[in-house]
Amino acid sequence: MSADVVTMDKIVALCKRRGFIFASSEIYGGLGSTYDYGHYGVLLKTNVKNEWWRAMLQERDDIVALDSAILQHPDVWKASGHLAGFTDPMVDCRTCKARFRADHIAERQPGIVCPKKPSKLPGEGPDCDLTEARDFNLMFKTNVGPVESTSSVAYLRPETAQGIFINFKNVMSFARKKPPFGIAQVGKSFRNEITPGNFIFRTREFEQMEMEFFVPPSEAPHWYETWKQERFDWYTRLGIRPAGLRLREHDADELSHYSSGTADVEYLFPIGWSELEGIANRGDFDLSAHAAESRTKLEYFDPGSGERYVPHVIEPAAGADRATLAFLVDAYDEEQVDGELRTVLKLHPRLAPVKVAVLPLVKKDGQPEVAKEIVQALRGLMQTEYDEGGAIGKRYRRQDEIGTPWCVTVDHETLTERTVTLRDRDSMTQERVAIDALPALLAGKLAAPWSSPKLAA
Amino acid sequence: MSADVVTMDKIVALCKRRGFIFASSEIYGGLGSTYDYGHYGVLLKTNVKNEWWRAMLQERDDIVALDSAILQHPDVWKASGHLAGFTDPMVDCRTCKARFRADHIAERQPGIVCPKKPSKLPGEGPDCDLTEARDFNLMFKTNVGPVESTSSVAYLRPETAQGIFINFKNVMSFARKKPPFGIAQVGKSFRNEITPGNFIFRTREFEQMEMEFFVPPSEAPHWYETWKQERFDWYTRLGIRPAGLRLREHDADELSHYSSGTADVEYLFPIGWSELEGIANRGDFDLSAHAAESRTKLEYFDPGSGERYVPHVIEPAAGADRATLAFLVDAYDEEQVDGELRTVLKLHPRLAPVKVAVLPLVKKDGQPEVAKEIVQALRGLMQTEYDEGGAIGKRYRRQDEIGTPWCVTVDHETLTERTVTLRDRDSMTQERVAIDALPALLAGKLAAPWSSPKLAA
Repeated sequence: MSADVVTMDKIVALCKRRGFIFASSEIYGGLGSTYDYGHYGVLLKTNVKNEWWRAMLQERDDIVALDSAILQHPDVWKASGHLAGFTDPMVDCRTCKARFRADHIAERQPGIVCPKKPSKLPGEGPDCDLTEARDFNLMFKTNVGPVESTSSVAYLRPETAQGIFINFKNVMSFARKKPPFGIAQVGKSFRNEITPGNFIFRTREFEQMEMEFFVPPSEAPHWYETWKQERFDWYTRLGIRPAGLRLREHDADELSHYSSGTADVEYLFPIGWSELEGIANRGDFDLSAHAAESRTKLEYFDPGSGERYVPHVIEPAAGADRATLAFLVDAYDEEQVDGELRTVLKLHPRLAPVKVAVLPLVKKDGQPEVAKEIVQALRGLMQTEYDEGGAIGKRYRRQDEIGTPWCVTVDHETLTERTVTLRDRDSMTQERVAIDALPALLAGKLAAPWSSPKLAA
Repeated sequence: MSADVVTMDKIVALCKRRGFIFASSEIYGGLGSTYDYGHYGVLLKTNVKNEWWRAMLQERDDIVALDSAILQHPDVWKASGHLAGFTDPMVDCRTCKARFRADHIAERQPGIVCPKKPSKLPGEGPDCDLTEARDFNLMFKTNVGPVESTSSVAYLRPETAQGIFINFKNVMSFARKKPPFGIAQVGKSFRNEITPGNFIFRTREFEQMEMEFFVPPSEAPHWYETWKQERFDWYTRLGIRPAGLRLREHDADELSHYSSGTADVEYLFPIGWSELEGIANRGDFDLSAHAAESRTKLEYFDPGSGERYVPHVIEPAAGADRATLAFLVDAYDEEQVDGELRTVLKLHPRLAPVKVAVLPLVKKDGQPEVAKEIVQALRGLMQTEYDEGGAIGKRYRRQDEIGTPWCVTVDHETLTERTVTLRDRDSMTQERVAIDALPALLAGKLAAPWSSPKLAA
């Protein structure tokens, strides 16, 4: 089955059935478009974030980590422009008080039937009586400290990036770095979206993976090209098929006023091509704005050349939830096997929530004991699961659905020969392997390069 | 130097100097008691959280992971009792409008000088004119959706635990578990504390590591004892010296009305014995409260015995920031070496932000090239740093201060013999090692059991 018959409904159903991701506060009727991650969802998303950190920190020498607070000084959002400009135009109905996004209403023919406006004829539905559009800020507002007053107002950060800009000077000195160098951060952000939706694609609470790369101004075009390619390659290295991935350069009229170049990495979701990540050449906009607002010099002085400048910034900004969703969609497959439908997540082994499941064929004859011994030998190396419940075929299917690349089965031969069968998720082939060889064999498979078996199909 | 001369000021200074942890929004004058984690701080705290996950997930079969949303349905806090009871009694000054915690005011003699109240005599300072105490809720309030109204009020979670209770039923079915089993979660929580302070010990935004262990009611006393010991041992296994750690059982008058037993793991911080973690026997209070509020059955039905019951809950609830602070304090040491003061963090190698630093003795003669080759061989295995700047002694001191257990030095012999010196942080001894032997040697050291060298001192 090809990827284009993967529907969002199938992904949502699998995520709920296997406890990856499900509606939050469900016993209280939910809280619109808020989701909780269950066991396999936590493991999968953690792997996605770890792979991002690996690409940023472990494989490079020029990036350092940061974890700035969600609650920041309100002047941060004044300088960044979020207080004045991070808004959606909204219209209200004067009769029923409902509020709508102006651009959604503009497209709508006929208008919206007002539930409170009296109809003059039976069956007639009078439209809402809409106000002019007004700007509505998308930041969540709260109060810090014991007194609720305007001076105690704070906002939940709508992006992690600003926490990096305001720490630029501190971090540069602590880390003894000079441009080009980057500061990377992963964390929750919050936007009071009027129209969240499409499962975890757009939610009010979400997790970002952002990196700000500070460069000498003359090198900005070079680094913009470099990071576009690096970030595109990150997704394909982790198994996303290139046919479902594209880099789309923004047109001049899409660009923010401060950006001299922005490109989106887009993925072909079941809802169409949608943004996974944006890579922007932000110039010196952010550092200059915070320097002006805080009256602090945010620049680099090169003691060698005597040169002093405000670095330019290249920003790859990705969504951890969106990336997780893209990996799920791209890995999802259905196949006819022995007259039955097999649902399988063909995830990159490094992303798979569980790497290996150890299954005794029967729940007796000493098989569970040997299986648990194997679990003990593997669990320090990789996420390992033990499952003894139900027919073996059913247990394989369960592991297929959560994307476990390898199943180790203990059978009657195991007891005498100290060998097990090792089953491959994608080919479903089995080979006989010595128990003692398992740790090194599986560690080797996990470290090996990988490409999606769906590419060959 | 012994641990009792470690002061909070020294820890704060080291954290700032080396970019572990520093005041948030600093260029805007800060936001009271909010902190950002820099590079080494992120690495250290991530290691602390990973060790917690290791103890909860990798070393056991009976716990699953969860990551529930920060924004939850407001009825969650009604059921949990936080809306009505999560309060501090406050008093206001009728003249200057300042607000104070009632228990702090009660202890105070003389009273507080009011900045707005006119004095009758020169030099006289009239006291604030205080109201009766009123309850002030510690939850941060915000509004979700486009309209600010009472129906759109939401709270930032004051603890992660409730997200676990409301998902109990879902998770139990997804995970195919039955009591005794646990659900573990790590994440940010928010409390609008009136008096935050003591660095990262008490902040308004903080990170929790909580696990709720659901058990048959008759097994609750057994599991309460088990988890007290498990959690105490976790800190000592990671190097905290037992003399600075204690388990303190709450007195009857300290217990919450629903708890039949609570014990704190306390650490001897420079500010005195303070709570690191609480282990509570919460009975069926939480599941019963949410069942009543949501009109959902939150119980376990055993198909074997036909028994039906509401599980009891044992909760070990730790603070990730407090644990990080305790590991820093316990590891901090100062020694006289060659007539100079050496500051060193004797952290457990698994907690250390950087495991190995690779240092060319001089910045020429091909030494940097060989050093970078060694970095390439090690970085996939463990966090590795390259440093070529400054005198070698100064570079060792820098690594000592951030707690790097091993330094690899490339010298002129390296070029011909393919050997390096391997320096141990705690003993400062050096041994000659073959480059090719380094990866296996260091991986072995990292996996070996460890105890604090300060124990012997």
